[in-house]
Amino acid sequence: MDHDRAKTMLQSFHGCRPMRGTSFLCALLLAASAWPLAAQMPADPLAFVDPLIGTGPEGHTFPGASAPFGMVQLSPDTDATCQIRECYAHAAGYSYHDSTIQGFSHTHFSGAGHSDLGDILVMPQAGAVRLDPGDPERPGSGYRQRFSHDSETAKPGYYAVTLADSGIRAELTAGERVGIHRYAFPAGQEAHLLIDLRSSLYDYPGKILWSGLHLHPDGTLTGFRETRGWAAGRKLFFAMRFSAPLKDHAFIDRDQAVPYKGFQAPGRGSDALAEKLGKALEARLDFGRLHGPLEVQVALSGVDESGAIANLDAEGAGFDTVRRRTEDAWRQALGRLKMDAPEPMLRNLYTALYHTLLAPSIWSDIDGRYRGPDDQVHVAKDFTFRSTFSLWDTFRAEHPLLTLVQPERTTSDVVNSLIASRDHSPHGILPVWQFAGRETWTMIGYHAVPVIADAYLKGIRGFDADKALTAMVASADHAPYGGLGDYMKLGYVPIDREPEAASKTVEYAFDDWTIARMAQAMGRGDVAQRFLARSGNWRNSFDASTGWLRARKADGSFRTPFDPTAINYGSDYTEGNAWQYSWFVPQDQAGLFRLLGGDARAIAKLDAMFEYDMSKLDYSHAEDIAGLIGQYIHGNEPSHHVAYLYAYAGAPWRTQARLKQIVESQYKPTPDGLSGNDDLGQMSAWLLFTALGFYPVTPGSNQYVIGRPFVRRAVLTLPNGKRFTVEAENLSDANVYVGAVELNGRPLRRSWIADGEIRKGGTLRFTMQAKPNRKWGAGAGTRPYSLSTVPIGR
Amino acid sequence: MDHDRAKTMLQSFHGCRPMRGTSFLCALLLAASAWPLAAQMPADPLAFVDPLIGTGPEGHTFPGASAPFGMVQLSPDTDATCQIRECYAHAAGYSYHDSTIQGFSHTHFSGAGHSDLGDILVMPQAGAVRLDPGDPERPGSGYRQRFSHDSETAKPGYYAVTLADSGIRAELTAGERVGIHRYAFPAGQEAHLLIDLRSSLYDYPGKILWSGLHLHPDGTLTGFRETRGWAAGRKLFFAMRFSAPLKDHAFIDRDQAVPYKGFQAPGRGSDALAEKLGKALEARLDFGRLHGPLEVQVALSGVDESGAIANLDAEGAGFDTVRRRTEDAWRQALGRLKMDAPEPMLRNLYTALYHTLLAPSIWSDIDGRYRGPDDQVHVAKDFTFRSTFSLWDTFRAEHPLLTLVQPERTTSDVVNSLIASRDHSPHGILPVWQFAGRETWTMIGYHAVPVIADAYLKGIRGFDADKALTAMVASADHAPYGGLGDYMKLGYVPIDREPEAASKTVEYAFDDWTIARMAQAMGRGDVAQRFLARSGNWRNSFDASTGWLRARKADGSFRTPFDPTAINYGSDYTEGNAWQYSWFVPQDQAGLFRLLGGDARAIAKLDAMFEYDMSKLDYSHAEDIAGLIGQYIHGNEPSHHVAYLYAYAGAPWRTQARLKQIVESQYKPTPDGLSGNDDLGQMSAWLLFTALGFYPVTPGSNQYVIGRPFVRRAVLTLPNGKRFTVEAENLSDANVYVGAVELNGRPLRRSWIADGEIRKGGTLRFTMQAKPNRKWGAGAGTRPYSLSTVPIGR
Repeated sequence: MDHDRAKTMLQSFHGCRPMRGTSFLCALLLAASAWPLAAQMPADPLAFVDPLIGTGPEGHTFPGASAPFGMVQLSPDTDATCQIRECYAHAAGYSYHDSTIQGFSHTHFSGAGHSDLGDILVMPQAGAVRLDPGDPERPGSGYRQRFSHDSETAKPGYYAVTLADSGIRAELTAGERVGIHRYAFPAGQEAHLLIDLRSSLYDYPGKILWSGLHLHPDGTLTGFRETRGWAAGRKLFFAMRFSAPLKDHAFIDRDQAVPYKGFQAPGRGSDALAEKLGKALEARLDFGRLHGPLEVQVALSGVDESGAIANLDAEGAGFDTVRRRTEDAWRQALGRLKMDAPEPMLRNLYTALYHTLLAPSIWSDIDGRYRGPDDQVHVAKDFTFRSTFSLWDTFRAEHPLLTLVQPERTTSDVVNSLIASRDHSPHGILPVWQFAGRETWTMIGYHAVPVIADAYLKGIRGFDADKALTAMVASADHAPYGGLGDYMKLGYVPIDREPEAASKTVEYAFDDWTIARMAQAMGRGDVAQRFLARSGNWRNSFDASTGWLRARKADGSFRTPFDPTAINYGSDYTEGNAWQYSWFVPQDQAGLFRLLGGDARAIAKLDAMFEYDMSKLDYSHAEDIAGLIGQYIHGNEPSHHVAYLYAYAGAPWRTQARLKQIVESQYKPTPDGLSGNDDLGQMSAWLLFTALGFYPVTPGSNQYVIGRPFVRRAVLTLPNGKRFTVEAENLSDANVYVGAVELNGRPLRRSWIADGEIRKGGTLRFTMQAKPNRKWGAGAGTRPYSLSTVPIGR
Repeated sequence: MDHDRAKTMLQSFHGCRPMRGTSFLCALLLAASAWPLAAQMPADPLAFVDPLIGTGPEGHTFPGASAPFGMVQLSPDTDATCQIRECYAHAAGYSYHDSTIQGFSHTHFSGAGHSDLGDILVMPQAGAVRLDPGDPERPGSGYRQRFSHDSETAKPGYYAVTLADSGIRAELTAGERVGIHRYAFPAGQEAHLLIDLRSSLYDYPGKILWSGLHLHPDGTLTGFRETRGWAAGRKLFFAMRFSAPLKDHAFIDRDQAVPYKGFQAPGRGSDALAEKLGKALEARLDFGRLHGPLEVQVALSGVDESGAIANLDAEGAGFDTVRRRTEDAWRQALGRLKMDAPEPMLRNLYTALYHTLLAPSIWSDIDGRYRGPDDQVHVAKDFTFRSTFSLWDTFRAEHPLLTLVQPERTTSDVVNSLIASRDHSPHGILPVWQFAGRETWTMIGYHAVPVIADAYLKGIRGFDADKALTAMVASADHAPYGGLGDYMKLGYVPIDREPEAASKTVEYAFDDWTIARMAQAMGRGDVAQRFLARSGNWRNSFDASTGWLRARKADGSFRTPFDPTAINYGSDYTEGNAWQYSWFVPQDQAGLFRLLGGDARAIAKLDAMFEYDMSKLDYSHAEDIAGLIGQYIHGNEPSHHVAYLYAYAGAPWRTQARLKQIVESQYKPTPDGLSGNDDLGQMSAWLLFTALGFYPVTPGSNQYVIGRPFVRRAVLTLPNGKRFTVEAENLSDANVYVGAVELNGRPLRRSWIADGEIRKGGTLRFTMQAKPNRKWGAGAGTRPYSLSTVPIGR
């Protein structure tokens, strides 16, 4: 931040306006606190982003280069040879604890629990060319090469490493639809690239359905791959250009078991020169001895090779140019939320912000065409089609965060993409877990619904609200989906007809509530009334006698045996148990607490959850169950709102203590620093909201529950030019608790703030202290509201 | 033909114009010969077409429904369970000698030697539903059903059969991009359709790469299939609508070996209701008890499912409507060439004309989009993209025939499609053997070149001639293709570097000559000179000492051992031996005859070919070698021009005798009536030209060599309204020879006519006699011209 901008910002913080002249108070503030604070705000937020955070075993983030929301995530794969169900640690291709790099591929999820991608792997080779990755334990047994983290640089939009076995220096950068490689080969060595279209993350025999390579007369290499992985029948096309002319090349089909090879295309022996189709293709590209680094520009497209060429024409450029563009884009995107915090936290926070800005990623081509859920090509008019929707995760905090840090472009794109996806869904419903335009049917619920409702209710426009509501209702009424037919008949999902019935019932009920909210705001009372009624269905799956959410059978009885600590696939719950799921009534926490026997019992149960003795339990059989604090499982989403629930019982000081406990144990600025999958930004968004001092427990309510800040200061710049500032006085390790809160200089007695209060700009000022303030937020009128008291609108 | 049209036609034949009043001569002609002749001209050409001709083992034609050049060939498959290399007799799905029908699929080649297709098989079932075709020997073991030819009707655009096991009456018709099914189920039985996306002609394990089914809310069923058959990575999309509502359905994946099934889409158990993707899909569609026949409208597209829906919207209609439209289209197309001949021959001739009008078939969608050789979607502007180019076969007579019977639309479409295919070819060359927009690399030569040159030199326009010539030259100069690099260096293709080198050398030389011709006509003397020189390369592969075309090695020696009767794959020749191939110098027959030692020796060698004692030879190991008269093999193309070569030696009477021998032995109006594969119309085009009394021995020369007619009369109507009439006086079995020929009332002394003479309209009148006229066509100036005397232009 330069001096002038800092000054302007501070003036707006404190009401010091230059035209009025500088008052004594202003001068004092500037001298005493403002300047030092401003000086601590990072000059360049990029300096605090470390893409290696989360690349350890649980985070599933990738260290490579991506533009904000880019279609291309160009990143090293340390192991793409493991087969599905064996390679959880390699969900993003790269695991920090590996010692070799297999190649650089162009697509990666940031923090997904399941995986796929790793498309179009490129590996530079000097001298001899190897065609198989080889064994990491036997250096030189394949094209895989050793590397040291000492040689590694990872920054937003930039990654570099030295491949130790050859001495090749590899650099990567990326634009929205392009990835640019730069390889410096050792002097005097023949430069080669190997493109291995066999390589894929979460691979298994038969995953690659078909692929192709096509060398054009102008030297452009295009190709495609069609896979049946997590997304069945996914197609990806690419176009590639090189800064040096090809001296020679071969397209090689490694498929040993082709029953019918067909007639032969013109070429050299069995290797076609211009085009090759098959299921196990490689391209060997020979450049001879080079006098400088080789640059490779690659564009992707989900539409066709022509689309990839058009994307390359539009966005391809020299390495340094693309890097500069993308760094500027990151600077702008990260600059929306300036933060100051103690150093290790600052690194966590900016990296978290970076991680929240990777998805939902761009999927439409530069000309607006994209391949939709029906595998057909459509055109996005007046918006950019986004995909990679991990909605069960991201409806909670990631999308609400985007409505603050990317409200104008991303959120309307997201909603338009969701509506378009429903238009083109073979099932006529909104996405569940979509990437590359394709539905995977992973996880549960219809959580595109709260994403849209939350955006609409916060005043975000630029989409057809009527169409959106129609899509939301259609998704909620689609009987063949996840037991919805029975849910509509019985008021709950019956476990004897549908697995994970307890989780489904409560998540559907919440989603229903958000439909009711949006319908009411749109004046659609009929829809609102119907879904408000449905939103009470959570009660039908609660066992009032025990206080647990439990799965019920179609005959009305609760399924037995019942163990609130059991975590199994296909059980009564989704990636969790009754401990986590019994808290999922974001639309009616007050109702839940009454059912539990009142605030004191609720608080006791929350405490019991966090303090549960885990010494006799082992959840290592279950993916995604990580980051445990008793039965609170921060590494997975069902727990994410739980620490904030104390506030609903009038005990926000308990929330404050829990947040410190969670933040300190679950987030570290190291490769192993994320306790669970980042889940396309949800883990990171949780941290960001929490650090700002408030969290969207109930998307669709326009309410953020106040916790406690972990930033000394933060400034959110809104597109209307307004700024919302968070300040924390007396922030220190010892000062765990909030003593007082002021909004725009006036005491804030309630333990929540409204979205509208943020959007109109202002300052939220916390004063921290070592002892709990048990009075603040304890009164009935000061707690976060619940279903019965929810006002519509902002 | 109605009375008025016949009268008008006859008036134009004889110069009798009503406005001048009817002269005595005209009245006499009308009374004496014209009216009776006219009466014999078929009232409806459709009555003489029998699509069952050629459905026996060699013809490879299909009996089902197609519009002229239609994208859809909807036809019964009697066996689609055989595997490639075992099912030569089922190249078109249907073999007349089978007793069961497996189903009705939408794509078939007409007479191809190799095969593929048989896409989107539909089988109606009454009562119980079977999911596998079952064993033909065990009725009821599957969905396959017995049928009798007694219940069968095959007409242009219409096919019907009764499925004996169920009593279902099945009728098929087709428009350009649609196929319409009508099934009458026995009263009281549940009506079902099974769609088996596994079924494919020339199948083999792994051929089906991927497929999909998608039921839309409006009841439209769409889907696709991607195969690696003869054409690798071919995609076909369909859309289907039903005249009765679906009562129930299931999408079933029969793949037993799916390693990763992915997450489940909403549906009933594992059967998705709205969409299913996989490699072995079936759809079971249940309609309950119906009170009338079920109609099924199906459209295809090579682009996408949306394209198929658009094609269905544009062309779909009720069964009777589509049938009527298509019959009208056939009436118009067949009516271009009205013929009168003795009854069995008339049936051969109209069926032959029908077969010549099936390909090159339409491949672009109604909106002009098509999938090209690069697998990318392109738009055909101002033309219809055609595919199914069996060019090694069809450059000879099929395309020259189309320039007469379909000059305005089809030929310019063909040339535009060839140019567009080259534009989008990954190799930058014209198609070799293309279908569904995809190159198969089958057979040899660059015979798109003579097709374009022939069209251009005959004055057909509507395409970019400069672009065409560029494409032709690029194809002829593409070194990696079929030994062309060596051919250009050495003047012949060396057999030690490239198989079938002898055949390639002479076919390249001919193709080169047509480039020279077209370049000369365009004033591109540089190109003409270069390719005229190349056209003499045939000499480099002729062994002057023996008079045989032989394969030469790179060192200049002829390869030994040499056996002029040997026929083997990958030998010196392509589907033939020295006997057939030593005649392939259409651009310089005179030069060849000089090389052979003069006319007498050439005639003796031709006679020796036809009279070769075959008792000790067995060619049953070789596909496509059928229809043998000595070493003359009419069932395959290299022989097709040979009977006409006597005319070049001044002995047209010998041609006349041979033609009778060939026509009578090789064409019968029966299912087994074609002695060889129809090859997308080439066998049929040979018969049609021959029956008219002339044949295009040298495409690109604008010259037709006169043989002898087999029609009593024929009238070719040209798009300019002009008519060209062939008449044969004294045509009878005994009158084998041509006594005299008149063109427009004047004696024609030469044994050839020019294309321009046909196009300006007129009458070619033969007088037949029992004894040879050895003088006609014997003089030096009366023989067909050869390379040295070829005039440019018409």
